[in-house]
Amino acid sequence: MQVTVIGAGNMGRGIGHRLVAGGHEVTIVDRDPQEAGWLAKELRAAAQGGATVEAAGPTSELRGEVVVFAVYYQGALELARELGDRLAGKVVVDISNPLNQTFDALATQPGTSAAEEVAATVPTGTRVVKAFNTTFSGTLVEGQVAGQPLDVLIAGDDKEAKEMVAKLVRDGDLQAIDVGPLERARELEGLGFLGITLQQPLGLNFQSTWKLAS
Amino acid sequence: MQVTVIGAGNMGRGIGHRLVAGGHEVTIVDRDPQEAGWLAKELRAAAQGGATVEAAGPTSELRGEVVVFAVYYQGALELARELGDRLAGKVVVDISNPLNQTFDALATQPGTSAAEEVAATVPTGTRVVKAFNTTFSGTLVEGQVAGQPLDVLIAGDDKEAKEMVAKLVRDGDLQAIDVGPLERARELEGLGFLGITLQQPLGLNFQSTWKLAS
Repeated sequence: MQVTVIGAGNMGRGIGHRLVAGGHEVTIVDRDPQEAGWLAKELRAAAQGGATVEAAGPTSELRGEVVVFAVYYQGALELARELGDRLAGKVVVDISNPLNQTFDALATQPGTSAAEEVAATVPTGTRVVKAFNTTFSGTLVEGQVAGQPLDVLIAGDDKEAKEMVAKLVRDGDLQAIDVGPLERARELEGLGFLGITLQQPLGLNFQSTWKLAS
Repeated sequence: MQVTVIGAGNMGRGIGHRLVAGGHEVTIVDRDPQEAGWLAKELRAAAQGGATVEAAGPTSELRGEVVVFAVYYQGALELARELGDRLAGKVVVDISNPLNQTFDALATQPGTSAAEEVAATVPTGTRVVKAFNTTFSGTLVEGQVAGQPLDVLIAGDDKEAKEMVAKLVRDGDLQAIDVGPLERARELEGLGFLGITLQQPLGLNFQSTWKLAS
């Protein structure tokens, strides 16, 4: 599958590693072309199963049906606004955890979520899927925590869009769990926030992950 | 430790099994004395390490420092009101998942939680701890899911009270995780809700549990 990842930071790196482990055609986009180039080079070296990796600038065409917003909350809303019609028909993956500036609460209003805000901003026909917000970058690079594959919790209102994201997840040797409609992003973002708050007190160093054991 | 469990239903049974596995002195209270008696008998048969089990009626003295409200959300608020001063000085464990009548949303207002509502209702000096709302009754009876001990996520504003609950959890061979102040019950109740919504679509039959893998 062709996938564009916007953001060559930690999360773009983590998700990029899973995508190239799954043999996909990945384009890394960043405002800083050097950052995009470095990450593309790293991912190319890790590519398996025919995966390809390109770097591209922020004004280039968005390749593929799936576009991952691998940026922070405010950046995701900005991308949704700035890219506008270029997103039409795409599946947009929002991974954000909308923390406030002091990291001790969510910045979103009660009764909504970052993902729903992104969905309200993109053009009609763009399908927004929430995923990867309860997995940290380092654990995505490894693909597992304590020998167990990461669970990627996926919320969205379009079944086909969710299944595309689930396939990317499974191809990267992770577990995909469909948690329901996009409004379930409220609980996912609560869970992401909870996980972040525990890192320092429990000394987890962002090496933890939430799993639904069964 | 002396612990009173109010409610001889599924969750009282699950938590009761962990308490008697840990060698504690358990009193089961229910409005229906026969229900309390049956559960006490079952737990007595499972008792280890000197654990004792008694059944008691709803008007009897509340034994011990820890009182578990093993009831539904509305019942927890009623207990907090009805027991009133009898709870003074106790550690109250709220386990509830405040679902609405159609089980498709939380019944609490945004920006609060069942645990915080219980805390606002009990007398001054009663310390409320949120715990056990992300673990299902059957998994508590077993103490594990897929060979892994359950994680019990604990929120509260009083460190000593949380540590008492954490000791009960550990004595029952479960993992205790302190997730912070009582307001984190908002995220825990979101997580409990999320887990409940997944049972039917994923065919989990209430045999799943949330784990913080690390």
